[in-house]
Amino acid sequence: MNKKGRLFVVSAPSGAGKTTLCEEIIKRLPGVVRSVSMTTREKRPGEKNGKDYSFISVEEFKKRLKTKEFIEYAKVFGNYYGTPKKFVESNLNKNRDVVLTIDVQGAMQIRKNFKKGCIFIFILPPSIKHLRKRLEKRKTDSTKVINSRLKIAKKELTFLKYYDYEVINDDLKTAFEELKSIFIASRCQRDKN
Amino acid sequence: MNKKGRLFVVSAPSGAGKTTLCEEIIKRLPGVVRSVSMTTREKRPGEKNGKDYSFISVEEFKKRLKTKEFIEYAKVFGNYYGTPKKFVESNLNKNRDVVLTIDVQGAMQIRKNFKKGCIFIFILPPSIKHLRKRLEKRKTDSTKVINSRLKIAKKELTFLKYYDYEVINDDLKTAFEELKSIFIASRCQRDKN
Repeated sequence: MNKKGRLFVVSAPSGAGKTTLCEEIIKRLPGVVRSVSMTTREKRPGEKNGKDYSFISVEEFKKRLKTKEFIEYAKVFGNYYGTPKKFVESNLNKNRDVVLTIDVQGAMQIRKNFKKGCIFIFILPPSIKHLRKRLEKRKTDSTKVINSRLKIAKKELTFLKYYDYEVINDDLKTAFEELKSIFIASRCQRDKN
Repeated sequence: MNKKGRLFVVSAPSGAGKTTLCEEIIKRLPGVVRSVSMTTREKRPGEKNGKDYSFISVEEFKKRLKTKEFIEYAKVFGNYYGTPKKFVESNLNKNRDVVLTIDVQGAMQIRKNFKKGCIFIFILPPSIKHLRKRLEKRKTDSTKVINSRLKIAKKELTFLKYYDYEVINDDLKTAFEELKSIFIASRCQRDKN
């Protein structure tokens, strides 16, 4: 019997720290890989194609959508994002845990199509006020975009109830310890099926 | 709304290392207390009344059994063991996590009577061979008692399927890390009720 990896779906309002936290997990926990999403959005300064995202054209995205190459996809701020099925499944079959950092829309699709053996984690900012501060500090978005992100954040928080775990990112070290514990504990969890 | 603690039920064949592991948890994780069982068995050298167990007479035990003062009880090797309800409930209500290190009989009673919010953890030796070695090293039991313990261990292992988590105690440090992770992750788990 081959042991299979687990799929960890991590969502968080933009600015709650999910990228930093998940990068630490990949770096420090052996046997965990991050799924690189495909997107049609513009590359931000510092981002690398194939590492942060695979940047593809809208035409290419729609073609892959038609041939069902994504286990979930979403349109956020006018851009498409999708998780390639082949990458996820081949890693799970090699007993590697796969982390998806995706928004609530995508998570709900995974929940519907891929439920078995999935662990859903929501990373929360201590408050909406904190979130605004972090987004402002990041200096990548205009005030208008920040306001729009905060509005979306509030809506996203209503999906918290569909997640298995919540991690409040107040202190980064504590949040990392909690996230890491969820990964390690999940490996000890007995398969009820 | 008051937050409530969680009840962690830890079982393991005798010699698998549950006492050492749970002691480390109590020592290192704030907000976790160990439930002290009541027993009618003889005090072993080094054991302290009220710390390791509360040692009471058979008459006293039966009296408390009648007045339903235990959330579970068991008769093992001719001796009674019971978990006092009052201690467990008052700690859970104070948002403290309570650890019970009890045998499979007791765990199955908790599973039946107290399921909500309980986490069931089984600590396993790497093999039965390892278990024999550890029991021999402990030098507290005769060969006859060791053989009897191993026979029971094999039977106990058939109950593994009723537990949420399994921790294999091969390397103590790894096993502690896993057990600790189960405790921390459980605190992040969202209540589905």
